[in-house]
Amino acid sequence: MTRPDGTRGFVLNQTMLRVRDPSASLSFYQDVLGMTLIQKLDFEEMAFSLYFLAYLKDGEAIPADPAERARFLFTRETTLELTHNWGTEDDPDFAGYHNGNADPRGFGHIGISVPDVVVACARFEELGVSFVKRPDEGKMKDIAFIADPDGYWIEILSPNGMTDAVVQAEDAA
Amino acid sequence: MTRPDGTRGFVLNQTMLRVRDPSASLSFYQDVLGMTLIQKLDFEEMAFSLYFLAYLKDGEAIPADPAERARFLFTRETTLELTHNWGTEDDPDFAGYHNGNADPRGFGHIGISVPDVVVACARFEELGVSFVKRPDEGKMKDIAFIADPDGYWIEILSPNGMTDAVVQAEDAA
Repeated sequence: MTRPDGTRGFVLNQTMLRVRDPSASLSFYQDVLGMTLIQKLDFEEMAFSLYFLAYLKDGEAIPADPAERARFLFTRETTLELTHNWGTEDDPDFAGYHNGNADPRGFGHIGISVPDVVVACARFEELGVSFVKRPDEGKMKDIAFIADPDGYWIEILSPNGMTDAVVQAEDAA
Repeated sequence: MTRPDGTRGFVLNQTMLRVRDPSASLSFYQDVLGMTLIQKLDFEEMAFSLYFLAYLKDGEAIPADPAERARFLFTRETTLELTHNWGTEDDPDFAGYHNGNADPRGFGHIGISVPDVVVACARFEELGVSFVKRPDEGKMKDIAFIADPDGYWIEILSPNGMTDAVVQAEDAA
């Protein structure tokens, strides 16, 4: 597979979502979803912080040296970048962020591939995660949607379930 | 690095954005940004199509067999999933999708790591890409933001530029 000239080395590195309360988001993405916080960056002058999370692969360790850690972070596929504008977590007038699935629509969801959707969702259920769609609801039985602390949708899918869906779609076509 | 029990094998697989006109989006993400369309799925009953794009690694080829292709797609980090609700591309009353960076805010951007931001942006400029922020504008000289055909923001960053930013932030802390 050849790429257009000038795009060699391009990597889809990040998806950025704004979050109201980083402690709630970090707990969710780390403890519930199993990601690791690789880097936090604070921007005092502009009063915001960035949190970069990713799924580490077996044997990967976060480099202690800042320059090596930055390279580790910004060359990889793919990270979740959470932006916290300071103060939203304590602001009773803050209306919350928009998840893109009601008007005005746009962004839809991030998606996490798991070995077994039913097993993963049983654990989410035990942990009190909010569901948008459970695996046994709706038309598509092989996928679920959960919501993160800000209400962003996260699709839970499995390679086996999606393989069945793709093969059926191709057979129907 | 150990993960919480029950999260082994989880992969951040996709980010979904709704698009008005798939031909414009496919041209942009393939020809300008160098991604490859791995799979299209049509859902006739619900009148929408999904387009899954990703950066293929050197030597990777898309499997011809549908089941193998689905496994190739849904086990990988990370894909861009474009959702096309049929008809928007021809609908003069369609207001367009919301990029999340004006009220109500939420989703911010996807980010592409490139070897050299200035070189990448010079090519984007030649190709007539819309810029939200050129590399020499604003406070952060090492990054740029371009807009896709629907107006979604795409950060253009480089490992070298971000390494400088991280080291400076750590020194300042």
